[in-house]
Amino acid sequence: MNPLRVGILGATGMVGQRFIQLLHNHPWFRVTEVAASERSAGKRYRDAVNWKMAENIPSDVADLTVKLCKPSELRSSAQSCDFVFSALDSDVAGDVELEFARAGIPVVSTAKNYRMEHDVPMIIPEINADHIDIIPIQRKNRGFDRGFIAVKPNCSLQSYLIALYPLHRQFRMTRLIITTMQAVSGAGYPGVPSLDIVDNVVPFIGGEEEKSEQESYKIFGTFSGEKIEHTSDIIISAHCNRVPVIDGHLATISVEFEKKPSREEILRLWKDFRSVPQELELPSAPDPVIYYREEENRPQPRLDRDAGQSVYRDARVDHAGVHYDGVDQVHVSQSGANYAEANQFGMNHAGVNRAKGMAVTCGRLRPCHIFDWRFVCLSHNTIRGAAGGSILLAELLKARGYL
Amino acid sequence: MNPLRVGILGATGMVGQRFIQLLHNHPWFRVTEVAASERSAGKRYRDAVNWKMAENIPSDVADLTVKLCKPSELRSSAQSCDFVFSALDSDVAGDVELEFARAGIPVVSTAKNYRMEHDVPMIIPEINADHIDIIPIQRKNRGFDRGFIAVKPNCSLQSYLIALYPLHRQFRMTRLIITTMQAVSGAGYPGVPSLDIVDNVVPFIGGEEEKSEQESYKIFGTFSGEKIEHTSDIIISAHCNRVPVIDGHLATISVEFEKKPSREEILRLWKDFRSVPQELELPSAPDPVIYYREEENRPQPRLDRDAGQSVYRDARVDHAGVHYDGVDQVHVSQSGANYAEANQFGMNHAGVNRAKGMAVTCGRLRPCHIFDWRFVCLSHNTIRGAAGGSILLAELLKARGYL
Amino acid sequence: MNPLRVGILGATGMVGQRFIQLLHNHPWFRVTEVAASERSAGKRYRDAVNWKMAENIPSDVADLTVKLCKPSELRSSAQSCDFVFSALDSDVAGDVELEFARAGIPVVSTAKNYRMEHDVPMIIPEINADHIDIIPIQRKNRGFDRGFIAVKPNCSLQSYLIALYPLHRQFRMTRLIITTMQAVSGAGYPGVPSLDIVDNVVPFIGGEEEKSEQESYKIFGTFSGEKIEHTSDIIISAHCNRVPVIDGHLATISVEFEKKPSREEILRLWKDFRSVPQELELPSAPDPVIYYREEENRPQPRLDRDAGQSVYRDARVDHAGVHYDGVDQVHVSQSGANYAEANQFGMNHAGVNRAKGMAVTCGRLRPCHIFDWRFVCLSHNTIRGAAGGSILLAELLKARGYL
Amino acid sequence: MNPLRVGILGATGMVGQRFIQLLHNHPWFRVTEVAASERSAGKRYRDAVNWKMAENIPSDVADLTVKLCKPSELRSSAQSCDFVFSALDSDVAGDVELEFARAGIPVVSTAKNYRMEHDVPMIIPEINADHIDIIPIQRKNRGFDRGFIAVKPNCSLQSYLIALYPLHRQFRMTRLIITTMQAVSGAGYPGVPSLDIVDNVVPFIGGEEEKSEQESYKIFGTFSGEKIEHTSDIIISAHCNRVPVIDGHLATISVEFEKKPSREEILRLWKDFRSVPQELELPSAPDPVIYYREEENRPQPRLDRDAGQSVYRDARVDHAGVHYDGVDQVHVSQSGANYAEANQFGMNHAGVNRAKGMAVTCGRLRPCHIFDWRFVCLSHNTIRGAAGGSILLAELLKARGYL
Repeated sequence: MNPLRVGILGATGMVGQRFIQLLHNHPWFRVTEVAASERSAGKRYRDAVNWKMAENIPSDVADLTVKLCKPSELRSSAQSCDFVFSALDSDVAGDVELEFARAGIPVVSTAKNYRMEHDVPMIIPEINADHIDIIPIQRKNRGFDRGFIAVKPNCSLQSYLIALYPLHRQFRMTRLIITTMQAVSGAGYPGVPSLDIVDNVVPFIGGEEEKSEQESYKIFGTFSGEKIEHTSDIIISAHCNRVPVIDGHLATISVEFEKKPSREEILRLWKDFRSVPQELELPSAPDPVIYYREEENRPQPRLDRDAGQSVYRDARVDHAGVHYDGVDQVHVSQSGANYAEANQFGMNHAGVNRAKGMAVTCGRLRPCHIFDWRFVCLSHNTIRGAAGGSILLAELLKARGYL
Repeated sequence: MNPLRVGILGATGMVGQRFIQLLHNHPWFRVTEVAASERSAGKRYRDAVNWKMAENIPSDVADLTVKLCKPSELRSSAQSCDFVFSALDSDVAGDVELEFARAGIPVVSTAKNYRMEHDVPMIIPEINADHIDIIPIQRKNRGFDRGFIAVKPNCSLQSYLIALYPLHRQFRMTRLIITTMQAVSGAGYPGVPSLDIVDNVVPFIGGEEEKSEQESYKIFGTFSGEKIEHTSDIIISAHCNRVPVIDGHLATISVEFEKKPSREEILRLWKDFRSVPQELELPSAPDPVIYYREEENRPQPRLDRDAGQSVYRDARVDHAGVHYDGVDQVHVSQSGANYAEANQFGMNHAGVNRAKGMAVTCGRLRPCHIFDWRFVCLSHNTIRGAAGGSILLAELLKARGYL
Repeated sequence: MNPLRVGILGATGMVGQRFIQLLHNHPWFRVTEVAASERSAGKRYRDAVNWKMAENIPSDVADLTVKLCKPSELRSSAQSCDFVFSALDSDVAGDVELEFARAGIPVVSTAKNYRMEHDVPMIIPEINADHIDIIPIQRKNRGFDRGFIAVKPNCSLQSYLIALYPLHRQFRMTRLIITTMQAVSGAGYPGVPSLDIVDNVVPFIGGEEEKSEQESYKIFGTFSGEKIEHTSDIIISAHCNRVPVIDGHLATISVEFEKKPSREEILRLWKDFRSVPQELELPSAPDPVIYYREEENRPQPRLDRDAGQSVYRDARVDHAGVHYDGVDQVHVSQSGANYAEANQFGMNHAGVNRAKGMAVTCGRLRPCHIFDWRFVCLSHNTIRGAAGGSILLAELLKARGYL
Repeated sequence: MNPLRVGILGATGMVGQRFIQLLHNHPWFRVTEVAASERSAGKRYRDAVNWKMAENIPSDVADLTVKLCKPSELRSSAQSCDFVFSALDSDVAGDVELEFARAGIPVVSTAKNYRMEHDVPMIIPEINADHIDIIPIQRKNRGFDRGFIAVKPNCSLQSYLIALYPLHRQFRMTRLIITTMQAVSGAGYPGVPSLDIVDNVVPFIGGEEEKSEQESYKIFGTFSGEKIEHTSDIIISAHCNRVPVIDGHLATISVEFEKKPSREEILRLWKDFRSVPQELELPSAPDPVIYYREEENRPQPRLDRDAGQSVYRDARVDHAGVHYDGVDQVHVSQSGANYAEANQFGMNHAGVNRAKGMAVTCGRLRPCHIFDWRFVCLSHNTIRGAAGGSILLAELLKARGYL
């Protein structure tokens, strides 16, 4: 199989950089185009970007010429692209993404512009993979041919919705009070000034509480075949805070259910949770999806944000986040594990665990004196909550034939 | 009036240091004894202490000889002390405090040991000043003569209980879900290792959630003249977290009342709130007690932790935390403000505002989708929440004749 | 004496805010005008500014209308101003400051634009107060009438030049290797992105090393009555780094002298150092100017940045930074210390110590294996190094009749 | 080849944990014993340790029973060990390490106790690999049979000595002034209290400057076959500071040579530097050893501390730290890369790059106004500077037949 050719819109920003880092040696996708604003267009990517990842710019991307964010620009090239990831700021994403979809180029976006549109699927692949089947309706509504827009939700709610989903499916969540402690990388670059956050907490992030609440209702909604019905059975009240942490959004949860699950039921549901991405063995799908830490003081952003092991393994291991455990030893040695096979393992030739940072980690499950249960959740906001979540969505779209 | 002679038990620890800093030039109290463990006993205070305050050791305390934490030690001195502040660790506070009370020396303590004892008053002077009148019963119960034990509650709940109290008094609070983001100074010194907290949040503080809940029920309880009846009308569920902030505990609040107050009623109750310490014009009493910040992103620990102006002023000013506004200009200039009078102003001769860090700051009042209201609270954990709160309690005890 | 009326150019930025905070209740100067860019002009100051100081906006400034940075704007008002402090960014400071000087309004500036001009005095008042006498030559050169431009040097070198000066005066410094660890407030607001500095150090600050070197040569230069001769006897090599600290620039020093001083000579020179601002008893002049900390691990930014006591005291105290020790007790009680006198003490009516953050703190004096001595220096970069240093310069100019 | 059986002394501390993490799936060494103090002895490792690594405890080590640090304890086991890594605190390392050496068990230590002993090799394998040949003399001197003690130097100097060595070899370094900005992990756990380092820098680390100077003279010394002659041609003067960074020691360097190299010569020497570990293709040897970053603001701890690629590669890549580039693609695909071969690549079966964090990164090379050149260096203090450096030393000892 030839990898799909991918363009990155907003390639020089923080989320754009994270896309490029995560897509390096991806088994299904190859970055062939990078696009950004006029200030960068025409330069080599390595010269245009203020690279902020700890790993270096992948050499094949470093020398690409940055294009403008226009379909004609990306198509004029011989390489072109089969679809684009959009990491654009919301002030330009609206028009640009629409233009690409109209031009027949599917858009998988991290921007907020189309999230609440009734015919745009907003997807956490483990929760509402079926919502992507609204795409034909979207195409029809909007006169798109091959193009469409699919989006991931806000980074903040991804720290806890995945953990709540298996409980909700069985016990029907009714009320939820959340406080998030969110990392500075969530605000992009330059983002949060250091003068605002060193020795400080800022108890406000513009629009974040509203998104945490409203987007959840859509994601937990049902797709009838015609439309996505937002759930009205759940009420959520969120408090969003910025803390001096680089990566990793943490959330404290108090939750009430129609029927109160037991502690054992919750832990069992978390341990056993597998969903569409795991069944489809998508390259970036983590398995386990949810870790539960028994220690009384976990999860913690710095220790748990990178948790996640690729789905392709024979033997399970009993602990989180060890990226060198991301592939099963027995399997490898038995199969003679050559390069081609290694790719099938959700790992690239050098053993990268593609699901690093894609799992959610829970801890401190204890009764709530007011609702049913209290606990703590954490996920990596720029991997699971942004670029990684979008890549998983694109893998889902590919597996389901939309790309 | 001669100032009372005060001993500090646990004088070399962080809270002990804060006591010494805050008591410098106090109009009613003078530190005449410092006591600590065997390791320090016999040394000059300046040699025994690992001083961590930004201000220097007050010179009159720096040369005191550190004593052991025994009544006989403190009494053998010609200076002696009229009462003691205890900043002892809970593993020794139990025995030592009892010994002092038995020896006829009143103890005002920050330790947790006696907080839940039925005959020990646990006081936030603006809320339950009347509970101190259980002291005669305590003396009788325990056979104390002049001695007694009075305590302040855990630092964490002091960020929000004061703000909730005037609302509760009028509208009866029923349910409360809180998430705290607590400063590292709350754990003392050496306390939280930097490896645990740089680029991190720890979603657990041992015993803190239980204390936040249980101690609140006692503080909001009623003293019948015979006993303190804990309130059973309120349910509290707390999530306590440690964040990389030096000083200042922040809390997000979702609260429900029997009768839902309007936004205007809440703001009015906060603005107008004055209580016993303000009426008694205690030197460390802040006025206003509660600030409300209109900015959407306040309170913040670094900007708001030092809020608090002394109660003695003629003209009110409309904003928080300006320590150079801590005394009324008109009053001073009219009175000729000599040194003696300056002391009466809750300020020392050099204009220190004794109530700095004693106020509570609120912000972000907005409806809660589940309960009635959401908001954010902040107070200085080692001033209002520890040493400063204890000094205010001692001032109350003095004003009421117990010292 | 009526206070001089002062305008602040660039009043909404970080340094502008610091000026306003420090000038609150200043005995000689009163802020009557605030000016900023078109975006702010016409608004009330309280609405135009994103206030970042821990203290609130002084109420008399909060309601001023923001003007444009034009002499005609500031003059049209009845209040007008006798001189201006410029906290402008260097990209506009050049033209604006010139325009004010031409219009007859003296400019005391923190901007770098005119620092290296041969007829502009760049002053650290304790070192080269005599350089201000180039002002008549500047006026003549440039055809200014009453106006002129006087500047303070870069914030970084102010952490150590003051400590080196008394040693240099007696023992002639020849070579100096410095490494600075500079606070984020030095970059203004929004300044350093948190993503660049949390869990990190940035070993580069644009232009800072060159300024640290070149500006020092001018400050240590001699004014002949005709011109300022830069020193050519000293060679400086600087390494400048940004660290995750809010305020306070720290520097490690290795220094060589023509004649090596003894340890005792150095400590004596530091202890005894008084200069023109102390002799003139300027309100913001610290005394002592230089503290030496005996502890092996001091100075530290968080503990020592606020060091500095006002010059007006009778009895010296032996330690740093106790702002409530900023006035002499004996003096006050003997004199009956009324409001008028308190002002004469370099303190405002509420006892503010005007020299807080104006002292330099040294520590760790030990032999250098290569040069003569090694030590560590610290000063507050936005007080001594920026706004406070400029205010002290303006006080000097006033005392010397230039304002 | 059967892997050697390794014991870890001080296995529960921070450096001990790092050893266990780095030795997971090591091709030559297998952890078979963990030893610690009485408090831990007898427990399972997973229960005894307060694990602080982001990756989990390797499952084969997690269930080992912790032994006491006595040769008899480790030998009584059927598994036993062929040598030990000592991560002991210096207060116990002296006796324990001697006891193991006497018992015939070689000790590779991170402790400082024996570093300056004339017959103990203190090794940075890229610099003075030949010093290990003093081991026979040590054995003879001390009556050891199979046992010996070999040590790595202090973590701080490892950030810059490796970068200076190729320059020194050719141009003879004469004088060196260094300022380090060191990470908190260098102090172990609990180590640096957060109250000391949040919003702060501590300009002192006990004994660090002396070690930085003295140990360098020994490492740059020559082994005559009889003894190690410390160099006396170099003078070093160090300033050591603690900064709020988790991992990664940064140093600013001013250096003078007998003969001044050109910029091109320096960059060429750094680029081409390969030494014994690279020639021997040791599993943890990085290649390149030294990276030079062209950006004006690099190296930075958070971005560059993990730099390092394994030595076994056919095709070089032009950039640093991409751990998924740690193995050569062409080589792998041509060879069919099975599990056994992957191990030979300095990578474990899952593609771990063993040299991650083992390289040194330089930047900002520019003339020094006083000496010849200024630049900035960085290395990972707990990998290159501690556990990783010791593992590389053990690999050297193994390759040379001492283990």
